[in-house]
Amino acid sequence: MRLKLTIQYDGTEYSGWQSQSAGTRTVQGAIEAVVARIEGERRPLFGAGRTDAGVHALGQVAHVDVEKRLDPKTWALAINSWLDRDVRVMRVEEVDDRFHARRLALGKLYRYRIWTGPFVSPFVRRYVAHVPRAHDVRAMKEAARLLVGRHDFEAFTVADRTTKTSVRSLRRLDVTREGEELVVEAEADGFLRAMVRMIAGTLLAVGDGRIAVEQVGRALAERRRDLVGSTAPAAGLTLVRVDY
Amino acid sequence: MRLKLTIQYDGTEYSGWQSQSAGTRTVQGAIEAVVARIEGERRPLFGAGRTDAGVHALGQVAHVDVEKRLDPKTWALAINSWLDRDVRVMRVEEVDDRFHARRLALGKLYRYRIWTGPFVSPFVRRYVAHVPRAHDVRAMKEAARLLVGRHDFEAFTVADRTTKTSVRSLRRLDVTREGEELVVEAEADGFLRAMVRMIAGTLLAVGDGRIAVEQVGRALAERRRDLVGSTAPAAGLTLVRVDY
Repeated sequence: MRLKLTIQYDGTEYSGWQSQSAGTRTVQGAIEAVVARIEGERRPLFGAGRTDAGVHALGQVAHVDVEKRLDPKTWALAINSWLDRDVRVMRVEEVDDRFHARRLALGKLYRYRIWTGPFVSPFVRRYVAHVPRAHDVRAMKEAARLLVGRHDFEAFTVADRTTKTSVRSLRRLDVTREGEELVVEAEADGFLRAMVRMIAGTLLAVGDGRIAVEQVGRALAERRRDLVGSTAPAAGLTLVRVDY
Repeated sequence: MRLKLTIQYDGTEYSGWQSQSAGTRTVQGAIEAVVARIEGERRPLFGAGRTDAGVHALGQVAHVDVEKRLDPKTWALAINSWLDRDVRVMRVEEVDDRFHARRLALGKLYRYRIWTGPFVSPFVRRYVAHVPRAHDVRAMKEAARLLVGRHDFEAFTVADRTTKTSVRSLRRLDVTREGEELVVEAEADGFLRAMVRMIAGTLLAVGDGRIAVEQVGRALAERRRDLVGSTAPAAGLTLVRVDY
């Protein structure tokens, strides 16, 4: 039977969801090892998307085909009893065999958190990027508005991307201030490699005046990676939700 | 000059604010070591209260007398640059020499967090107690009401207390549900050793029916430690605020 897993993880100690190099600690690898223990055989786990090293998830989704006829609650209990506490399978559901965590995803929501105060609270230290500066939030919102819509986001991804097209529909890109934190939320039908972190880095550069709002529009239109900001640190990024 | 420090810490890796035994890692010890490094000499740090091993703080307060004439912001920067990231001095203020972090404290607010869902989110795993059961929140609130006021809290502290009196004014004791979390907030003029954790443990016992509401009233009136619940785990407790 096919199981749909909804997974949370603190990615600090992981080389991402799925690693390119062998022998590294990945979230996918950790869960696959536990499922193999229960099944007596390795079962491939398909995630909705690969998060980079150090990136977190509140709602990563994956599916796996298993043979043991346990009910979903028992599966969740069994898997979690073997996992480290920084990864939790929050929910297991039995789904139709046609369900596919990656192919059927209609959209994703990512959150990027920036701590702007001089000293980072120990309670969020693993989940924020620290940028202790004043930010022009209005300019950041303005730049964000330019990016919303269906565009070719070639300027906002790595040079060696492997996907066929770099056109994505960015449905929402909100910048909000919550106390000493700036929160960037990005919702799209899909994201390119490093896209949210490059957008966050660009908005931060706009926020402290290193990049003009117009330059963001030009980077997008001309697909010029040299005009955008640097990639913001992985720690600030969380995959919040995958929609089907 | 006298400095007032407002401190946050993730207490997971510490043997409390101040340890009874030598050679242990304490928050007070960590900050004193850094101040000594800057001052060239050890200066005693006085905290508003001693938090137990594993207990956290969002607003611990302490004072220290120093001789280096740096402005408070520079002090904060200097101290934090040497501290581990799980302890942060969020604010340093120069105060009158009559200020005393413990003696002048008028009240404190503690928060106790309980995760009631089957699986603890990795993001709060260090800051909650895990009690995956159904709780009768109404009964918990009822029991909490019995404890509010000026009472002798002898039943809610350790047997070998060192304070002169066990009478305290519990101004507020709220139980609220926030999603899968139960939050107990306790505000008083002062707290006895283990008092919040024993109150939380007792409310939890009321919540799942192990202790009747009336028994809590009787424990308080008759000062009987054998009638209250067990001490709830340190991880769930946070010192939120000290008022002056």
